[in-house]
Amino acid sequence: MNQSVSKATLGRLPMYLSYLKSIPTKEVTNISAASIAEALNLHPVQVRKDLALISEGGKPKTGYVAENLLRDLEKFLGYNNVNCAVIVGVGHLGQALMSYEGFSQYGLKIVATFDVKDTLIDKEIHGKKVFSIDKIPYLCPRLCANIGIITVPAEAAQSVCDKLVEAGIRAIWNFAPVILNVPEGILVQNENMAASLAVLSNHLSETMNKS
Amino acid sequence: MNQSVSKATLGRLPMYLSYLKSIPTKEVTNISAASIAEALNLHPVQVRKDLALISEGGKPKTGYVAENLLRDLEKFLGYNNVNCAVIVGVGHLGQALMSYEGFSQYGLKIVATFDVKDTLIDKEIHGKKVFSIDKIPYLCPRLCANIGIITVPAEAAQSVCDKLVEAGIRAIWNFAPVILNVPEGILVQNENMAASLAVLSNHLSETMNKS
Repeated sequence: MNQSVSKATLGRLPMYLSYLKSIPTKEVTNISAASIAEALNLHPVQVRKDLALISEGGKPKTGYVAENLLRDLEKFLGYNNVNCAVIVGVGHLGQALMSYEGFSQYGLKIVATFDVKDTLIDKEIHGKKVFSIDKIPYLCPRLCANIGIITVPAEAAQSVCDKLVEAGIRAIWNFAPVILNVPEGILVQNENMAASLAVLSNHLSETMNKS
Repeated sequence: MNQSVSKATLGRLPMYLSYLKSIPTKEVTNISAASIAEALNLHPVQVRKDLALISEGGKPKTGYVAENLLRDLEKFLGYNNVNCAVIVGVGHLGQALMSYEGFSQYGLKIVATFDVKDTLIDKEIHGKKVFSIDKIPYLCPRLCANIGIITVPAEAAQSVCDKLVEAGIRAIWNFAPVILNVPEGILVQNENMAASLAVLSNHLSETMNKS
């Protein structure tokens, strides 16, 4: 079933889930695609299609039983399973991610962090020990890590990525501003904050020029 | 000139900049689009086109003077100007962003943070004072803030967005998993970490099912 779901749909599913979690299920037992669409500023047809892909509980007039829909979403998104991740690059961004406790609600557990700097190695930061990057091949399989979070500078990202893939990592969450080459079957999800900032900054200078 | 640049190009420009910053300019005085493309795993034609949009310094055989290209990129991306931003929502993600010192290199300055929780208001977190959300209309214009960073829960995001727009904010960086409605002329840049995690998690459960 998972394979038929587009990235766009996958991107909206967490929105539905966080909305359902935000409403008091004791008061709201049933919920319709239309009311979810209204709350999230989406088109009702889109919401109806998305939900039909992940839950069979939708009924014409009453909609979904809120509790069941929430359970189906969590199951589909795999938030009930725990995915173990490692962070490579304990700079400002890496440390910000290490301190972010919200990941656990998405089933993401940071099991180790790595860096090249002697001043960081063997230190404990935000309750997590920093290991030498040389330990990736040994520690990743041992800790059953399957997600690698890359927060190193651009020029180091590809070699870190190669090390992670060799160590059995199957999905890369890449915060470095670079396009990574990976073998088939490995997913790279890019999170380019600098690119977002460029879009924002460019918009501001555009509107500044107009006014 | 800015308006002719696509979002895709804008997304790549910070990559070029961070690459140029990473190479020792004392040793490398000239740089070609081809060598930048190779380092970042991009297509040389794409890099050549992108750079031609923002710099006139490219020459057929020698390429660009590295220092000049760096300056042109910084100028175009507006990193030399300071954009003042406020963060609304001082939860885990908000605090992670507050502690991220890397923003200054992109010309982004966090000038105020807001929350609704009494336990946070008037406290100082990561060197930044937290104000009541009621002070948005007063403080945003006074601090010349033009970017609003939204890190509140989904259900509160639209009302926060409305408050920010009323207070003169012209660009929204939205980390809440919700589609925001804004008037014409206001840019919303969505950063949906939950959606990224859903894509990663879905890939892992897919490959798990196959093996």
